[in-house]
Amino acid sequence: MRNSKPTKPKGTRDFGPAQMAKRMYLLDIIRQTFRKYGFLPLETPAMENLSVLTGKYGDEGDQLLFKILNSGNYLSKVEGDPVTYDAQSLLPKIAEKGLRYDLTVPFARYVVMNRNEITFPFKRFQIQPVWRADRPQKGRYREFLQCDADVIGTKSLLCEAEIIMMLNEIFARLGLEGYEIAINNRKFLTGLSAYLGQPNRENDLCVAIDKLDKIGQENVYQELTTKGFSPEALTRLSPVLAVSGTNEEKLQALTAVFSGTPEALTGLNEVQELLGLVKGMEGNLATVNFDPSLARGLSYYTGIIFEVRMLDGSIGSICGGGRYDDLTGIFGLPDMPGTGISLGIDRIYDVMEARALFPEQVSGSTSAMVVNFGDENLAFALAAIARLRKAGISSELYPDKAKMKKQLTYANRNNIPLVIIAGAEEVGANKVTIKNMLTGAQTTIAAGNLIATVNAMLEKN
Amino acid sequence: MRNSKPTKPKGTRDFGPAQMAKRMYLLDIIRQTFRKYGFLPLETPAMENLSVLTGKYGDEGDQLLFKILNSGNYLSKVEGDPVTYDAQSLLPKIAEKGLRYDLTVPFARYVVMNRNEITFPFKRFQIQPVWRADRPQKGRYREFLQCDADVIGTKSLLCEAEIIMMLNEIFARLGLEGYEIAINNRKFLTGLSAYLGQPNRENDLCVAIDKLDKIGQENVYQELTTKGFSPEALTRLSPVLAVSGTNEEKLQALTAVFSGTPEALTGLNEVQELLGLVKGMEGNLATVNFDPSLARGLSYYTGIIFEVRMLDGSIGSICGGGRYDDLTGIFGLPDMPGTGISLGIDRIYDVMEARALFPEQVSGSTSAMVVNFGDENLAFALAAIARLRKAGISSELYPDKAKMKKQLTYANRNNIPLVIIAGAEEVGANKVTIKNMLTGAQTTIAAGNLIATVNAMLEKN
Repeated sequence: MRNSKPTKPKGTRDFGPAQMAKRMYLLDIIRQTFRKYGFLPLETPAMENLSVLTGKYGDEGDQLLFKILNSGNYLSKVEGDPVTYDAQSLLPKIAEKGLRYDLTVPFARYVVMNRNEITFPFKRFQIQPVWRADRPQKGRYREFLQCDADVIGTKSLLCEAEIIMMLNEIFARLGLEGYEIAINNRKFLTGLSAYLGQPNRENDLCVAIDKLDKIGQENVYQELTTKGFSPEALTRLSPVLAVSGTNEEKLQALTAVFSGTPEALTGLNEVQELLGLVKGMEGNLATVNFDPSLARGLSYYTGIIFEVRMLDGSIGSICGGGRYDDLTGIFGLPDMPGTGISLGIDRIYDVMEARALFPEQVSGSTSAMVVNFGDENLAFALAAIARLRKAGISSELYPDKAKMKKQLTYANRNNIPLVIIAGAEEVGANKVTIKNMLTGAQTTIAAGNLIATVNAMLEKN
Repeated sequence: MRNSKPTKPKGTRDFGPAQMAKRMYLLDIIRQTFRKYGFLPLETPAMENLSVLTGKYGDEGDQLLFKILNSGNYLSKVEGDPVTYDAQSLLPKIAEKGLRYDLTVPFARYVVMNRNEITFPFKRFQIQPVWRADRPQKGRYREFLQCDADVIGTKSLLCEAEIIMMLNEIFARLGLEGYEIAINNRKFLTGLSAYLGQPNRENDLCVAIDKLDKIGQENVYQELTTKGFSPEALTRLSPVLAVSGTNEEKLQALTAVFSGTPEALTGLNEVQELLGLVKGMEGNLATVNFDPSLARGLSYYTGIIFEVRMLDGSIGSICGGGRYDDLTGIFGLPDMPGTGISLGIDRIYDVMEARALFPEQVSGSTSAMVVNFGDENLAFALAAIARLRKAGISSELYPDKAKMKKQLTYANRNNIPLVIIAGAEEVGANKVTIKNMLTGAQTTIAAGNLIATVNAMLEKN
């Protein structure tokens, strides 16, 4: 293995200092806003037992789980002739754990295992990586960060209202404009399915119309036809998908259409009520768009569903979520309703980068570097760096007595805005020179004024 | 899989809100201090190719790596009859990736892969989990956080001085007292090995005397005897291990003993120089203890080594590290010297918990809860929660119109200090009642004074 050129697994990423600074800026804002809305932090292990993960994400999801070989002699549980096993039948003998695929199933596991200690309703947020053995492609990674907030243990629509308020606040603080929070209700879609003469087919219906933006109405209709929706059903669907106007106008129009479909009306009424709650919270309703064609693929949603999209269509949804009736039933704890959202950090990052929304100061660079002249002024330099740090100024002493040019290049490449120069001459006069790396300007001051001057220059920069 | 009681892999942990708040407090202080000293953040993927990980941690380490099954049909690369394979020979056919075992090897990989973009010296910190298939026991987990800071690309002893300053600052900010930063030098140990008549045996020597605290001098001597160290060698070793007094006194005594062993003298001189640099940085030398028996197990250390220990012996070392000559040679990039430390977050957390060093406010709880009375005062409650959040006060509206007692219990269990009560009566009079959950006291004020009063009460609490 020696001297081999190292590689990184495909679909994974390193985050160097410049990216990290921006990611931390982004995540700090999200984390602070989550907390402001009363959500509390949770972290779960990267590894979960496969008994917890398997069967929760459909067959395709099971394929995309990263499985971890049992430690030690992982073949010890293989009985009989291994030749009789194929990959699928051998798996449970050699792997008991996998990497988490999302944050929802681990959250459900946590809730069930800690149900006696948790005070419900429980508002948690969780920001951790997840892993999927997907084919890597542009914008799709095998390890990526998920960023979830959920309220569990209540059916109150106030939770949805809070989520909308919270999303508006997050995006406002990030400086992100030109987005919409599309909302719909699974109950409306259930009613719609019945209205189309296909009761209880809302999952097929949702899977199909979820693709409306991507593949267009013609292809969606083709898919629905294949699934047994009649031409009459599609004729009835068209005006629903085409409904337009303000949220009020759309709700009014659809309420008239669905007057004979109670489930759909319940869904529409909840949308109406939610909009009223957001208004009462002095929320920005301009961003909220009732979209009766919004479906969201996941089958466990049962109430209001969300999706946040950029209006310029530059990128897919940057956030999605919705209400579920029963998150923990799969683990033997029934009747645990809740609602939650998941923010797409990578996409939000890309939009912010494309629009130059990261503040300049977020470079995360160190504020000042003290030039190293070696022994001739070491004591002075050591004292200077100690004073800078005591004043809370992030700073470093260049570790070697290198040529001035090399040291300045280092400061420049690392975006360090101020360089402190105190050679023999300055030290003799108890002075110090500060070089502004942005302007190139130099100023020589009394050593005693170092901190005040550096602070003033940093503020100006 | 339905309705099965979920479990968590052994040796892993969930961190609920209360623990998370404390961990984030601890990590924020460490992160801020790292940055103040000019270290920049880096993150690498959880998965690394096994070609990168294998052979870097010794045979035992290779055993403790968590290996990830290749995705898809993982048996497709197995040729011939699987029965002819044992666990070891089958492994490379079915697993190409593993979970990172530490942060040092991924850092070395990152440096090699990005050598043309990095400006050296490169100061990076990295705070991420690592995974080891160790037998779980008290205080030892299969997933745990490592917290490393390294400077790479320089041999300057200033880096060691900065690390000592930085450690002192971290522990001061955490309120942690009664610790020592033990230092020694591998060069001294190399010289010592020669002095004992066993040149180039410093690794065996280090492995043995590293256990001095744990197994006592007699057992260490037995181990050294087994490894071929003569009785005369052990007689020469005894006064070295027994040397006492101040750092200056120990250095003086040993300098006399090792006057004929140049490598040992170099080591002692570097210790002396380092103490001088820390002094020049106005550092707290009281915590620094030159310990000629400090060895640190890892074989790649070549210069100054560190260990931070609690003086009361309540727990093993809470930080370790040292200088290495060649971090990246294993990946084909020679001559990359550096120095670094790794903080033991779990142990530091335990010490802080035992000594009640986490500030009360770190509970991470939400500041205020608005009681939900349902429709009768919904508009008022919605406006109140909007005002609280606009003022930056973390707050929540209880989502359901539950009994007052249930709502107050929720606030109480979640350590929410203030509860805002605005029933029909208060709303009618445009007033609001604030209940201090710590004292039980209630006060009714004009609704317009809500924010000012809440802020004042939060400050007092």
